[in-house]
Amino acid sequence: MPHISLPEGLPGITSGFAFRPETAKPMRELAHILLHGPNTLSPAERELIATYVSNQNDCYFCQTSHGAAATAHLGNKADTVSQVKHNFLQADISDKLKALLVIAGQVQRGGKHVSHESVQEARKVGATDVEIHDTVLIAAAFCMYNRYVDGLATWQPQDPAMYASMGEHLATHGYLTPSVKP
Amino acid sequence: MPHISLPEGLPGITSGFAFRPETAKPMRELAHILLHGPNTLSPAERELIATYVSNQNDCYFCQTSHGAAATAHLGNKADTVSQVKHNFLQADISDKLKALLVIAGQVQRGGKHVSHESVQEARKVGATDVEIHDTVLIAAAFCMYNRYVDGLATWQPQDPAMYASMGEHLATHGYLTPSVKP
Repeated sequence: MPHISLPEGLPGITSGFAFRPETAKPMRELAHILLHGPNTLSPAERELIATYVSNQNDCYFCQTSHGAAATAHLGNKADTVSQVKHNFLQADISDKLKALLVIAGQVQRGGKHVSHESVQEARKVGATDVEIHDTVLIAAAFCMYNRYVDGLATWQPQDPAMYASMGEHLATHGYLTPSVKP
Repeated sequence: MPHISLPEGLPGITSGFAFRPETAKPMRELAHILLHGPNTLSPAERELIATYVSNQNDCYFCQTSHGAAATAHLGNKADTVSQVKHNFLQADISDKLKALLVIAGQVQRGGKHVSHESVQEARKVGATDVEIHDTVLIAAAFCMYNRYVDGLATWQPQDPAMYASMGEHLATHGYLTPSVKP
């Protein structure tokens, strides 16, 4: 039961977006640029960072929807998503993404946790300044989105087919328009 | 020393904004709507929520700049800002703002910490659904801004006059344009 009167039938963040379209607009744009815009990190890599942070923040809606988007980008290798959530150092991903996930995990705990050493490590395996910047900001942004979704106690259905369909939509169209219809 | 090559001479978040203008745009817009746009919560009240959360997240730049913006709105009652940061239940603020700060503190710890009881309490002292929504989102958004500022290890000067001037600028003009010149 949501803490406020959110529109019914809309899952997770989409109910907050429908409740307050003014704030939804920049929140959608930020997600679109970070996860779907032009970038030397692939959309799959960025969705995996978002999924990892959302899992660390224990946000069911965000980790499931972005996990589904990552799966769609990866060609349905759902195993990779699960590996990244539970033990990314052993996951079937690049050393660069592993180093960036270390930084993302530090951001999730708090900005001051990001260490010089972890940034140097990421650079050593090829991460650029923009990639480090975007990793920090994706992780920081999901500390917002996750808190927004759970802080309003939004409705978060547990239907895998809904998330798979949402993931396909997000992977194809990005974040500027709603991925679910009321 | 910042973790990446940020433009020099720009304090705190302004250096991240200059480094990556694409993401700066929606981040500025979101802050502008939440803190400066039309609202039944005064700009001072919203800046106090931002200051409180930034203090809980131990972000020097954000708590000092938004504390200065709150002070500018309040007509230079810097005492209120200090009271809110250190013991808001005893601060010279309304019961409604106290109840909203309880919710903001819960969001800062994590979205699932927001309790039905604290929301009911806020409602009892007059908070509307939009005010509760905006409190949750301001607190969530500052969990992003704070992590962005500290996660990049931005330069955060300790010059009170700079923050006072920035606070005046933010209180007058809002967040769409830079408050400091390179």
